[in-house]
Amino acid sequence: MSRKSLYERLGGYDGITAFADDLMLRLQGDSRLGRFWQNRGDDGIAREKQLLIDYLCSSAGGPVYYTGRDMQASHKGMHISESDWAVFSIGFRVSLPARQ
Amino acid sequence: MSRKSLYERLGGYDGITAFADDLMLRLQGDSRLGRFWQNRGDDGIAREKQLLIDYLCSSAGGPVYYTGRDMQASHKGMHISESDWAVFSIGFRVSLPARQ
Amino acid sequence: MSRKSLYERLGGYDGITAFADDLMLRLQGDSRLGRFWQNRGDDGIAREKQLLIDYLCSSAGGPVYYTGRDMQASHKGMHISESDWAVFSIGFRVSLPARQ
Amino acid sequence: MSRKSLYERLGGYDGITAFADDLMLRLQGDSRLGRFWQNRGDDGIAREKQLLIDYLCSSAGGPVYYTGRDMQASHKGMHISESDWAVFSIGFRVSLPARQ
Repeated sequence: MSRKSLYERLGGYDGITAFADDLMLRLQGDSRLGRFWQNRGDDGIAREKQLLIDYLCSSAGGPVYYTGRDMQASHKGMHISESDWAVFSIGFRVSLPARQ
Repeated sequence: MSRKSLYERLGGYDGITAFADDLMLRLQGDSRLGRFWQNRGDDGIAREKQLLIDYLCSSAGGPVYYTGRDMQASHKGMHISESDWAVFSIGFRVSLPARQ
Repeated sequence: MSRKSLYERLGGYDGITAFADDLMLRLQGDSRLGRFWQNRGDDGIAREKQLLIDYLCSSAGGPVYYTGRDMQASHKGMHISESDWAVFSIGFRVSLPARQ
Repeated sequence: MSRKSLYERLGGYDGITAFADDLMLRLQGDSRLGRFWQNRGDDGIAREKQLLIDYLCSSAGGPVYYTGRDMQASHKGMHISESDWAVFSIGFRVSLPARQ
């Protein structure tokens, strides 16, 4: 029985970062979801990706202290539809690496 | 000769906040500039407006410690065109209150 | 009957800033509480004072969007004693301006 | 000849985090430097350690976007003496893992 944390099984910080890179590119390039990252600056997008990495690492049991907003506060008012979530969910699973 | 700071002449914190409220509504409703605030969450927009208020107050000589990014870093990569700046500049002047 | 908000009755942003300036100087100079601000950098203290101003303005009904931590999170682990709170409470009331 | 980045040679994110954990405990327990972390809250210290990790990873060539203050701004006014730096420097080298 594995005693590894999900953080370790996803390849640790670098594995989760590679996942986040892949996921962000996939979502930004998606015709239905790309609108959420259009017309924004480089620094804002880089900060958001770093927060995503920190959130994922922290949630998966990694040694990261997440100081960003909670998910509800950060998404309120974005008018994310049910079908947006469905598309996101598929992209998330496609980008997710095989757990070790 | 006036010895008042620009901060005071613009009506202090509340005057500059009213200005920022008016300016943000004007820009968000503009057909050419509105894209910069579309598809974003309520909290992100509220934070951005607060940073605008803090930046304006601080720049005008008010008692505010601005801790946000500098203007170059925050706008890099947004692909703001010359005509975008021209439209912004007009909106800025229209929203600006008469200095006291 | 007054319909003014507490924010207005405390003199608005500038009144609350003057209050925070006075309070911080009083607490930093206090022989029992001064330890909380010793050995810290200028920028860290300036940021903390700005967060205090933002928190007070927001709590008093002013047009400020407070994005700092909640009071419980920011004070946990500081080992603030009952007598520390009593000293703080007196300083707070002494610095507080007469409400208009 | 090694083509590994310093980030990799220090053991990546987890190696640098273990280093930062060790260093922070060493400095906080030091009779001359411990004053810089006394009388502060848990959240503030956890945030500072995370910023240290992010800064080290980013400086060493790792995939981390550091959004904290620069070193000069964050240390100004702390009255760090020459001998403080000497003690820090020794602790830094003692905590630093052997590069791979």
